[in-house]
Amino acid sequence: MTMNIILDIDDTLFPSSEFSALARRNALNAMVDMGLSYSYPELNEKLNSIITAKGSNYGRHFDDLCKSLDVRDSSRYVAAAVAAYHDTKASIAPFPKVALALLKLRENGHKLYVATNGASVKQWDKLIRLGLELYFDQVFVSETLGMEKCEEFYNKVIEALGCSAKDCVMVGDREDADIIPAKKAGMLTIRILAGKHKHEPSTADHATEDTGSLFEIVQRL
Amino acid sequence: MTMNIILDIDDTLFPSSEFSALARRNALNAMVDMGLSYSYPELNEKLNSIITAKGSNYGRHFDDLCKSLDVRDSSRYVAAAVAAYHDTKASIAPFPKVALALLKLRENGHKLYVATNGASVKQWDKLIRLGLELYFDQVFVSETLGMEKCEEFYNKVIEALGCSAKDCVMVGDREDADIIPAKKAGMLTIRILAGKHKHEPSTADHATEDTGSLFEIVQRL
Repeated sequence: MTMNIILDIDDTLFPSSEFSALARRNALNAMVDMGLSYSYPELNEKLNSIITAKGSNYGRHFDDLCKSLDVRDSSRYVAAAVAAYHDTKASIAPFPKVALALLKLRENGHKLYVATNGASVKQWDKLIRLGLELYFDQVFVSETLGMEKCEEFYNKVIEALGCSAKDCVMVGDREDADIIPAKKAGMLTIRILAGKHKHEPSTADHATEDTGSLFEIVQRL
Repeated sequence: MTMNIILDIDDTLFPSSEFSALARRNALNAMVDMGLSYSYPELNEKLNSIITAKGSNYGRHFDDLCKSLDVRDSSRYVAAAVAAYHDTKASIAPFPKVALALLKLRENGHKLYVATNGASVKQWDKLIRLGLELYFDQVFVSETLGMEKCEEFYNKVIEALGCSAKDCVMVGDREDADIIPAKKAGMLTIRILAGKHKHEPSTADHATEDTGSLFEIVQRL
């Protein structure tokens, strides 16, 4: 039978944690290259405390980093960091064979959707950069729905799709945001074992390290 | 003798007008590709009136474009436009042989500076994207000096360099911002005939279509 398959983006479609770490490293190295007289470890420690305090969606991490170090004429360093950061973020690519898996799912009559926490334009930018933007019939972003992923979020998705919960499969890397609340809403679940939460125990109907095998997994559900 | 050579960025070091037009065209085409049901000319006309109203440094042109067209779920179109726009802006390159000309000037003992109107981080981003960021001893940006390029701006530059006006050459594409006020401040001037203002008459000491020939021009001044 054909299903509504709902996918998370970060660490489900692509190695988000790895790219974020790389983007930060490239940004700080670009500041050092531009002549900032601090070492990478010093800058990294400062940056991490700024990210912890302000959150990862805050837009002025590198300005704050320069301020906290009393850097004069900081524009050159901020520009170098932001350019390197954006270039890395622009080069994201899906996990192996994900595009092929999505294509096979669609060709076999399944419908594909996205459910993701974050800012709407930012999450769309990721789908575009991944080259996956045309595979999905609808994209549900927490910013637009007015709530992060929780049981009610998934109930809203089911309502929007006009289907029954048992015709839905939620695919994601996080127990707290993807698996547990989607199960509560009555969906089937597939856990992607990737990223920072990789080693947390899975309560999903199926778990895999390989998003690229999704077509075969769905056929066996 | 060695001189202090002060260069404008846009339409002096690189074809800024052409890249801006291309970035806008690529952004609007990306919106159409994403499924927005308007033609490129329709979108372009709306966008031009938004740019005229809000200025080119305003950050939300594509959001406003979607709003003015009553587009629902605009995030995908804004993300597509912004990604294409940034990718084009990230691919800017200098006019032919500019890097070589700057290198020869430095090797012959001349000092290089930048004087530019705009936002400081944005202008630094251009120097970095052009690969020219290490050639300049100091970069003077209107945002930081608190005024657009005018006679007083150039007097401040002369003061900062601790030199005499007659040891300075201002190089730029605009009579109003680069040539006339720099002459008033006592500098020599070289007009670059490029971009939107290319056909305006020149009052500079020298005029050229070729920034790449700057070394030879300076040697003859």
